[in-house]
Amino acid sequence: MPKLWNETIAGHRETVRETIMDTAWRLVGERGLSAVTMSQIAEQAGIGRATLYKYFPDVEAIVIAWHERQIGAHLARLAAIRDEHTDPGAALRAVLTGYAHLSRHRGAHPGDLTSFLHRGAHTDTAQQHLRALVTHLVADAAAAGAIRTDTAPDELATYALHALAAAADLPDDAAVNRLVGLVTAGLLPDPGA
Amino acid sequence: MPKLWNETIAGHRETVRETIMDTAWRLVGERGLSAVTMSQIAEQAGIGRATLYKYFPDVEAIVIAWHERQIGAHLARLAAIRDEHTDPGAALRAVLTGYAHLSRHRGAHPGDLTSFLHRGAHTDTAQQHLRALVTHLVADAAAAGAIRTDTAPDELATYALHALAAAADLPDDAAVNRLVGLVTAGLLPDPGA
Repeated sequence: MPKLWNETIAGHRETVRETIMDTAWRLVGERGLSAVTMSQIAEQAGIGRATLYKYFPDVEAIVIAWHERQIGAHLARLAAIRDEHTDPGAALRAVLTGYAHLSRHRGAHPGDLTSFLHRGAHTDTAQQHLRALVTHLVADAAAAGAIRTDTAPDELATYALHALAAAADLPDDAAVNRLVGLVTAGLLPDPGA
Repeated sequence: MPKLWNETIAGHRETVRETIMDTAWRLVGERGLSAVTMSQIAEQAGIGRATLYKYFPDVEAIVIAWHERQIGAHLARLAAIRDEHTDPGAALRAVLTGYAHLSRHRGAHPGDLTSFLHRGAHTDTAQQHLRALVTHLVADAAAAGAIRTDTAPDELATYALHALAAAADLPDDAAVNRLVGLVTAGLLPDPGA
């Protein structure tokens, strides 16, 4: 049964890959990016160094792969939140709330890791996906009359995403919910229009 | 007249310092941070290498000094805008508009310079001054009934400054003015309150 065999191999490889990423992330969190070596990761993951190098060329590549997986999970979570709602205004508000709460915990990487991770090209791609997701929601909500139509959807999305990034500086969930309230108020139809 | 003599010396030193900063900034903009040497800066500024080293230890220090001067000028500009207004709501709106337009051009540093500059401790201090300036304006505007009072001034300032940073992604001044309109709408008293 070559097909089943291949699936087993692929599943095994994926399990090893995930173990490597989780181990590296934990070690980097404990010791800092520059203090972790490939040998330490191999040892803690319970694999040989030669095997580790078949998966990743260096520590930085493992950390970036972890971050890509994390960003992918966040985008999937926001898409799932969107799909829970049929009303466009409610969907937009729910996704913005979800994004704000994700943003509050996002910056909490140890040491110099945040600036390292956010220099990567993979975050640009993720940012574009996020922007596209929110822009579509804004356009739908505008078409449904739930938000203002005097400003283009991509400008409204740019405003909302930047404003919600303020969540990283806020102390608790209640403050994050108040922030979402402010951002949503900015999106409402202009009362003077 | 020792006092006058000292003033002349200080004035001369300040002129040389400014010339060095402007020269270094121009060269770094043309060639990139890593390609510019102290010798090139000395030559283009019309001073000796030994003299240059009496002012700055390396190229990075000159670029940071330029950036500190630039940030100081921006903060002074915002304080001047504030002082043009007696009405607290008008002062807040004017300062937020000024900040948005400064933000639009702020990110336009060549190459890897933006991430280098924004890692520096001097930008943290500047950020705190900016935050304090806007928080005071927000508190005054709230006390005057011009904006909402259901959220603390420092949270409103955090929201406004993050949202206005979106200006760096906007194509023109008209879009920046629309962004200021969105942010200001978020600050208005909650119509449901």
